[in-house]
Amino acid sequence: MDIIKPRTLSGFMELLPAKQIRFEKMAEILRSTYASYGFAPLDTPAIEDAQILLAKGGGETEKQIYRFQKGDSDLALRFDLTVPLAKYVALHYNELAFPFRRFQISKVYRGERAQRGRFREFYQADIDIIGDGKLDILNEAEIPAIIYKVFRSFGLRRFQIRVNNRKILNGFYAMLGLTEKSGDIMRTVDKLDKIGAEKVKGILLEDCGLTEEQADEILTFIAIRGTNDQVLTALEGYAGRNERFDLGLKELKAVTENLAAFGVPEENFAVDLTIARGLDYYTGTVYETTLLDHPEIGSVCSGGRYDNLAGYYIEKELPGVGISIGLTRLFYVLDEQGLLNPALPSAPADALVLPMTENPGPAIALAEQLRSAGIRVQLYGEQKKFKQKMAYANKLEVPFAVLLGEDEIQEGVCSVKNMISGQQVKLAPAEAAAYIRAALEAEKGPLILET
Amino acid sequence: MDIIKPRTLSGFMELLPAKQIRFEKMAEILRSTYASYGFAPLDTPAIEDAQILLAKGGGETEKQIYRFQKGDSDLALRFDLTVPLAKYVALHYNELAFPFRRFQISKVYRGERAQRGRFREFYQADIDIIGDGKLDILNEAEIPAIIYKVFRSFGLRRFQIRVNNRKILNGFYAMLGLTEKSGDIMRTVDKLDKIGAEKVKGILLEDCGLTEEQADEILTFIAIRGTNDQVLTALEGYAGRNERFDLGLKELKAVTENLAAFGVPEENFAVDLTIARGLDYYTGTVYETTLLDHPEIGSVCSGGRYDNLAGYYIEKELPGVGISIGLTRLFYVLDEQGLLNPALPSAPADALVLPMTENPGPAIALAEQLRSAGIRVQLYGEQKKFKQKMAYANKLEVPFAVLLGEDEIQEGVCSVKNMISGQQVKLAPAEAAAYIRAALEAEKGPLILET
Repeated sequence: MDIIKPRTLSGFMELLPAKQIRFEKMAEILRSTYASYGFAPLDTPAIEDAQILLAKGGGETEKQIYRFQKGDSDLALRFDLTVPLAKYVALHYNELAFPFRRFQISKVYRGERAQRGRFREFYQADIDIIGDGKLDILNEAEIPAIIYKVFRSFGLRRFQIRVNNRKILNGFYAMLGLTEKSGDIMRTVDKLDKIGAEKVKGILLEDCGLTEEQADEILTFIAIRGTNDQVLTALEGYAGRNERFDLGLKELKAVTENLAAFGVPEENFAVDLTIARGLDYYTGTVYETTLLDHPEIGSVCSGGRYDNLAGYYIEKELPGVGISIGLTRLFYVLDEQGLLNPALPSAPADALVLPMTENPGPAIALAEQLRSAGIRVQLYGEQKKFKQKMAYANKLEVPFAVLLGEDEIQEGVCSVKNMISGQQVKLAPAEAAAYIRAALEAEKGPLILET
Repeated sequence: MDIIKPRTLSGFMELLPAKQIRFEKMAEILRSTYASYGFAPLDTPAIEDAQILLAKGGGETEKQIYRFQKGDSDLALRFDLTVPLAKYVALHYNELAFPFRRFQISKVYRGERAQRGRFREFYQADIDIIGDGKLDILNEAEIPAIIYKVFRSFGLRRFQIRVNNRKILNGFYAMLGLTEKSGDIMRTVDKLDKIGAEKVKGILLEDCGLTEEQADEILTFIAIRGTNDQVLTALEGYAGRNERFDLGLKELKAVTENLAAFGVPEENFAVDLTIARGLDYYTGTVYETTLLDHPEIGSVCSGGRYDNLAGYYIEKELPGVGISIGLTRLFYVLDEQGLLNPALPSAPADALVLPMTENPGPAIALAEQLRSAGIRVQLYGEQKKFKQKMAYANKLEVPFAVLLGEDEIQEGVCSVKNMISGQQVKLAPAEAAAYIRAALEAEKGPLILET
């Protein structure tokens, strides 16, 4: 037979079992946390009508999208989970209860140039809350509370959710008479961390055509730092000059105040006036999340408030607020940096049951008994030498091997071998289950390490 | 703004929240059951190199596949999970421990003609055990034991796993000198349930060109019925005439004997000589699973033993055994037939917390407290009239509303309203959590009903 050399396309993540098990744990934490806040799971098709996906159009999207014909149909793979959400909400508007809260953890597709750490197929883990006409500000405080819960559940403490409000920025630029240029200015200001205040000022003066005074005002504004209270107090100094600004400040205060009630500590949350988010459609609160010891990773969870989710599909005002975690990239970066806790068990089974007699019946029954006690058990039925069986257990990195020979069967016990310590004890099946469970319980730890 | 009418492509399942929640429960049962037997989760890309996916070729596959260019790449969407598994095992051969056990629950794509109940994007839920060179027969007994566990976990009792062995069939046809014609004969015999013995015989004589004697021998053979013991005893009568047949019989006996040890009751398992499975690559045990009260659904879980998983990609003998559940179709059919237990809660939240005061702080804290107790809680922050809030709770079908007004805050309690009975009680937060949990626990039932 002719052999075709197997390969996986570049830009497509395909993990070995031990890593996939860690990835699944992250996904499971996201699912259960999102569900605990009353978000409904959603699963839209990966393929949509290309005209519908591209209703908004836009340069990069059109270039990167996977688009193809099948019969007469013009099809495309989704490039994010927001456009399919907009389509879903518009299509099922009459059947949904608003506010409509959904989470979706699904793959999206972007045919970007292949590059280390960039993926063409990747998971996004999104939550959104969609209102019908109106949506209370309380939702904008709940979102960072959920981000907090997610990252704490990953095992992290050293992260910061940075929050701003687009109304404050837009109102501020309106005060300076710079509404028209606000897009360019925000893109420039966004580079502050990277290029420094001086270079930002240079660009504002030369490329954006601002006056010296305007540039200084902006630099003073984005230099506002301190505790959340200090930043809010400084912002009070600008109040009363622009309605939009005042509304934004009121919203930011409401978000900040409610976060304490949600149990988010001050150290995990910062009002940061440099955050703007690139996308045009954010209109209120915006979020970015950074790992404090790994600023080089950039934002690991971003989002914000928007006023018009589905205007391309339905004549209804559908405001919303949401966030997105680029799960595949986050996992890749954490793994690269060695931050995935290596002490956490990553074997597909907790115990490998090894029948040492010709009749596998007793070993089968033992394996079933251990499973009933909640242990993941693999039965090893291959006719191999003992040494090879142990080598297999080691390669799987299974924490326990459970041996069942004639002696054990006679005595009504099994031999439980801890594969790390090498310690071996004879226990009755129910005791063996309790022993293994206790050991697994003790080995639980954070999914992600802080270094 | 111009409105583009939203739609979801035909042949693509997109569920409303209440149904999606039921679907997720089915998927979760599959994940946890597969994991409990030591299968590792696998997640291969949906897009592969078209040349690799189509290594085997074949008419229907080529026609149905979604294939497209991106830049210079000839790409295609996977049409099953077996070919990607073969690629994965060949590619990562040196990094895997054999037997390699994996489960994958993922979407696959087939551009079939649109038809009610047929899907172009659908989930398959597969498990496979791959050996390196050899694979013990014990694995062929374990597979139906896992099928049994899955369907029992769905809440079903009235199902039957039908098992046969291709070596028995091939050996039997060899005895009659009909090896060359065995493919045609098996396809004909497969129609027995639908068209009856007389028509089968007619086709065997006229289309397959068999003698009267050969046709009668075949009809006698496939008419063997009874308990598993009776069928096996009848098969003994053919022993000693063909080596392959004898080996198949030995395997079938081993599978049957071990199933009792796995805890599979005789009524859920039947040796059935009419089962052959269409695919050419099955070489040993084959499985089909039917719901006894719904034979019209056909097989809901099929699979078998094969000798050569990845011959197109690697010069290694990699035998395996596996099964596949067409999850999307199964869910669709169960739903159509009204078999998804309607009494099972399907709301995105267990409780809706309604702040009845201007300051949402106490309600936020209460919601967090209930969540810590494992309850899925949605906080409702919209400024609406009480009646509208209740209408929302009803539309969501949330089982409990938790009201928190000035009175309750003063008394350190909350008002818990059972949305079905209308009963309302004042409870301290910890009591409220226990009360809601107890009620949810009592409402647990089978996912699928038997009617």
